[in-house]
Amino acid sequence: MTEQQEPNKATIEQAGNRISSYLHRTPVLTCSALNRMFGTELYFKCENFQKAGAFKSRGATNAVLQLKKNELVHGVATHSSGNHAAALALAASRLGISAFIVMPENSNRIKINAVQEYGGKITFCKPTLEAREQTLKLVLENTSATEIHPYNDYRIIAGQATATMELLQDFPDLQMILAPVGGGGLLSGTALAAKYFGRNISVIAAEPAGADDAHRSFRSGSFIPSENPKTIADGLLTSLGSLTYPIIMKHVDDVVTVSEESIKEAMKLVWERMKIIIEPSSAVPLGAILERKVVVGHLKTGIIISGGNVDLSALPFNL
Amino acid sequence: MTEQQEPNKATIEQAGNRISSYLHRTPVLTCSALNRMFGTELYFKCENFQKAGAFKSRGATNAVLQLKKNELVHGVATHSSGNHAAALALAASRLGISAFIVMPENSNRIKINAVQEYGGKITFCKPTLEAREQTLKLVLENTSATEIHPYNDYRIIAGQATATMELLQDFPDLQMILAPVGGGGLLSGTALAAKYFGRNISVIAAEPAGADDAHRSFRSGSFIPSENPKTIADGLLTSLGSLTYPIIMKHVDDVVTVSEESIKEAMKLVWERMKIIIEPSSAVPLGAILERKVVVGHLKTGIIISGGNVDLSALPFNL
Repeated sequence: MTEQQEPNKATIEQAGNRISSYLHRTPVLTCSALNRMFGTELYFKCENFQKAGAFKSRGATNAVLQLKKNELVHGVATHSSGNHAAALALAASRLGISAFIVMPENSNRIKINAVQEYGGKITFCKPTLEAREQTLKLVLENTSATEIHPYNDYRIIAGQATATMELLQDFPDLQMILAPVGGGGLLSGTALAAKYFGRNISVIAAEPAGADDAHRSFRSGSFIPSENPKTIADGLLTSLGSLTYPIIMKHVDDVVTVSEESIKEAMKLVWERMKIIIEPSSAVPLGAILERKVVVGHLKTGIIISGGNVDLSALPFNL
Repeated sequence: MTEQQEPNKATIEQAGNRISSYLHRTPVLTCSALNRMFGTELYFKCENFQKAGAFKSRGATNAVLQLKKNELVHGVATHSSGNHAAALALAASRLGISAFIVMPENSNRIKINAVQEYGGKITFCKPTLEAREQTLKLVLENTSATEIHPYNDYRIIAGQATATMELLQDFPDLQMILAPVGGGGLLSGTALAAKYFGRNISVIAAEPAGADDAHRSFRSGSFIPSENPKTIADGLLTSLGSLTYPIIMKHVDDVVTVSEESIKEAMKLVWERMKIIIEPSSAVPLGAILERKVVVGHLKTGIIISGGNVDLSALPFNL
């Protein structure tokens, strides 16, 4: 059952059926104040209300539910400082299997708490990619667990695609969809779902200027990983993967970059006007509209709000 | 058409019909994490998503829509430092009439901005009740506007009652409802709606310990106004009114007090777990549950989330 090929219409629909009893069908919200402000119609798919507070639960749940019996015994493992860690821990706990999570020792307290609350078994490591990968290798050897990569996995991509599938079931006449891009799991899933379930929709990715590997890779046509990315949008620090990059090149219409100031301003705007908590990564698409990097005009535009996990003791609102 | 009597079932239903095309029917949210934490079932009526960000729009709209032609010409007026000011300005602007708002000169910038955005005409005054009342008196003389009191008005009470009417239409088998209490407009409306639309429901009011006039008045059986109230729950600083106090004495089952620490903790809990922005006043009922001042047990319990207007540059999360 494991998906070894790029998700198609059927595999995304199967993912939707597979995960539906485990997760929320999140609401799509609109805001008349923001629509007035931008002179357009925005439809926010609110994955901040998803289980574990982010779209990551879709992919993690879709992957875990496809494990074979002999894999389930040993549990799953990943390295992640963020929402994938919590999502995988929660998905594993729902099936009664172990989740071994490698986290950098400087990870956000909130994210560590979430993983622990969902029963994830954390191994801390130094905060470098090398240390994370080496520690995960050791954990995999010791536990025989199955690695579930945060984005470079077709099961993950198919799971993330279900957010846009639902959005288009609710609002079939959307003309544009904006999503943030980090490793590209959400973005590639969004693009595939737009292709299979939409009517000739533009898909635009928004990326922090301080972590612009997707922008540079997209524009140059060759894969350029991030070096020392730096942004408040902590979910978008990673580089594209070998599976996500080709999907994005083929199905995404543009990748635009957004300044830190616009990300903060967009986040504040959503908090103040929509009264919902979104994390900085979720604010990047609206930041792109604020900067007029994306011209929405009168297009009915969907925006994927990727998550709502924020450390409330360290907010960026002293602007 | 002006209501001169305590709202009954028919007047609350009429208020609901009168305001429905102007306002949101707000969602009722549940949160599995909070239900697990408290071992109960909580149903949050989310007036933070209401127009102008608070339940106050219900009462203000219900009042303005009952003005006579000769009253409409001169507009409406009130003194308020908070959500009633914005709600009245918005309601007036929807009818194309003037709203004259007397605000203390030290009012929150966010609240001033909201009133201005909705076209309210602000007169600033010294931040004392005496100055507010005297300034309003002058404004009323100069403009011939009709005063719309924030809570001591049966039209306002009937409007606020519609929140609980809707909640009980959605969840008819609630066994308890919790609401915050300041001037008592929301609470008296909640109690009347629980009586007319619920099935033998307990109504419990939660009040900041630092502004406990309702608690003391309720327990002593005689009206005791606040002196120097002080609380982070800035919507609950006012004392009960001559119209709200008797309704509360008759129809509310208990009034409990909550510490500032519990209000902040409850607010943070809702932000972190439900990913929605609620203002401190809205957090007081959950604070009462946290402090076990209200024992919800397995009762299906409704909680009125009164509003979501918060100054994001001055948050109370440095606990």
